[in-house]
Amino acid sequence: MTEPAAPLPPGSRIGILGGGQLGRMLAIAAARLGMRVHIFAPEEHAPAAEVAAERTRAAYDDAEALAAFARAVDVVTYEFENVPAAALRAIAPHAPVRPGARALEVSQDRLEEKRFLNQIGLRTVPFAAVSSAAELHEALARIGAPAILKTRRFGYDGKGQVRISDPADAEAALAALEGAPAILEAVAPFRRELSVIGARGLDGAVACFDPGENEHRDGILRRTRVPGDIPPAARAEAVLATGRLLNALDYVGVIGVELFETDQGLVVNEFAPRVHNTGHWTIEACVIDQFQQHIRAICGWPIGDGARHSDAEMRNLIGAEADEWREIAADPRAGLHLYGKGAARPGRKMGHVTRLGPRARP
Amino acid sequence: MTEPAAPLPPGSRIGILGGGQLGRMLAIAAARLGMRVHIFAPEEHAPAAEVAAERTRAAYDDAEALAAFARAVDVVTYEFENVPAAALRAIAPHAPVRPGARALEVSQDRLEEKRFLNQIGLRTVPFAAVSSAAELHEALARIGAPAILKTRRFGYDGKGQVRISDPADAEAALAALEGAPAILEAVAPFRRELSVIGARGLDGAVACFDPGENEHRDGILRRTRVPGDIPPAARAEAVLATGRLLNALDYVGVIGVELFETDQGLVVNEFAPRVHNTGHWTIEACVIDQFQQHIRAICGWPIGDGARHSDAEMRNLIGAEADEWREIAADPRAGLHLYGKGAARPGRKMGHVTRLGPRARP
Repeated sequence: MTEPAAPLPPGSRIGILGGGQLGRMLAIAAARLGMRVHIFAPEEHAPAAEVAAERTRAAYDDAEALAAFARAVDVVTYEFENVPAAALRAIAPHAPVRPGARALEVSQDRLEEKRFLNQIGLRTVPFAAVSSAAELHEALARIGAPAILKTRRFGYDGKGQVRISDPADAEAALAALEGAPAILEAVAPFRRELSVIGARGLDGAVACFDPGENEHRDGILRRTRVPGDIPPAARAEAVLATGRLLNALDYVGVIGVELFETDQGLVVNEFAPRVHNTGHWTIEACVIDQFQQHIRAICGWPIGDGARHSDAEMRNLIGAEADEWREIAADPRAGLHLYGKGAARPGRKMGHVTRLGPRARP
Repeated sequence: MTEPAAPLPPGSRIGILGGGQLGRMLAIAAARLGMRVHIFAPEEHAPAAEVAAERTRAAYDDAEALAAFARAVDVVTYEFENVPAAALRAIAPHAPVRPGARALEVSQDRLEEKRFLNQIGLRTVPFAAVSSAAELHEALARIGAPAILKTRRFGYDGKGQVRISDPADAEAALAALEGAPAILEAVAPFRRELSVIGARGLDGAVACFDPGENEHRDGILRRTRVPGDIPPAARAEAVLATGRLLNALDYVGVIGVELFETDQGLVVNEFAPRVHNTGHWTIEACVIDQFQQHIRAICGWPIGDGARHSDAEMRNLIGAEADEWREIAADPRAGLHLYGKGAARPGRKMGHVTRLGPRARP
């Protein structure tokens, strides 16, 4: 047992890998606590860099730039889960990385992720590793169709996924993934999808925000409502599952855990080792939101208790929906967030809007 | 009548004169709406510049730098009321300045300010212009002692003020102000000080946040509570006075109006043509806070309605009180703000903390 590290004092330097909207909102939260933010991102236009004191523009495989970045900060975190393992190795000698490498490794591979969840006693849908047509047929025979074939790595927002409705479509599905190692997952006929934004401090303290009910369309989150229509028992179970996961990973920071409520109970779909789109409602509905919570955790500060003062509904503004800013601005109580991105490409998350309601139940 | 200007779209460039904590919180609010912020500030270490996309470091009397800054943005605002008139003249040909020059002129001179308030039918304490010992004695004879002698210009946080308890102290008081043009103000025996954070849009719409009850010590704000113990009639009167002032100034943006509740009713003490320390509680207690509200107004957007979902108490962290961050961070529901300033000099505002409570009354 080592003594817990002293909390990083105000004025400390927070390094963030990634320059998108999550990094932008993390940078704002860090600034609010008097921290100095340093963004590491390869793209020319990084929305997060516009609210940060320092910025390094370099590729995630530039070990020298990563080491210099790490030497210039007191702690490193990230806004996306596909940080290359080599990048972490370049950073690790110079600054702590929080959440740690274990959470990243597990979450980067859908197969490892589901195996890990099962190992720690959390239920998932049935799944099987697939690296050949023979394995796929065997897996389909066991799991049944419809099922979803997914690449094990680098999937997000519905990308890298093919639905197999009939075993006859197996070869075409495999071809669509271009030979990438894959996982076949049973389709869970679920009543609803929910998610929990959890947090774990450096001292091991755990706190979760209330679960939200999510709606997706075309694989992209459209809306999160809190508390939504989630039954109390499912809410409690989801929070307990999140706590178990945080402890099993010896996690530090905020995590986003997606679950399905099925006729057979809750199953964990996946988790993201970072602040999460389904937690944006916390900005308006909580004194300490998910971004503050993450910065507190990675700085070794006590974490907030996840309390919310209001019910909330968050809607994403996808692609051209960002043009609705005029109408949304005309609602005198709508919390509008725009991410400072350039072109509103289809499917691109351009902003979100949160509306609060009085807290209807405890 | 000219058509109201179209609202500035997301991605527009907001210029802010001043690099302190108010500029920092304005910059964060602007970034949330997808705007790009450009800070103009002479000091090397400007807390606002750490959350801004662009920064100009130059003096407020550098007309060339001001003009270049104004050309590089779509609208200019400021975080302090002592912006030199010459600076506004350098900016005006290139970008709109909001709030406008009239509000600045009036608020920069305590004598003009009180005269203006009286002209539009708002009560103040009795006052008199003082530019000589003879005038001071005459004023003391009329207003009585105790009274407060203040410089007409450049006072803040209790600076540039001398209390005169006895007419015999008149000469010493005048000497303390070193010959600066002054105003003698009656001391109002007040039950409480309150303030209203009001806003007026480019379209003339007006909205006020609920009045707060303020506590000062040594001339510096210590605490604001909303709604505090302010009687309903005084709340209504304070809001109406603020609306009248906003309209009379043809104001655009957020204003902070300080009032005293006396045995003879409300009197207006002073106003600041900017976001205001007594409005920091709105960050946690409102979906659209005073900083968002100001950015919306100066961008020609519809303003929020000033609704709050919670009661609130805001406490300033002055000087070494910022060292309390560890204890405050241990409160899992305290909204802590630290401004990223360097040395915690006595009397310096280093941060603040807001705590919410359920809304006790409408």
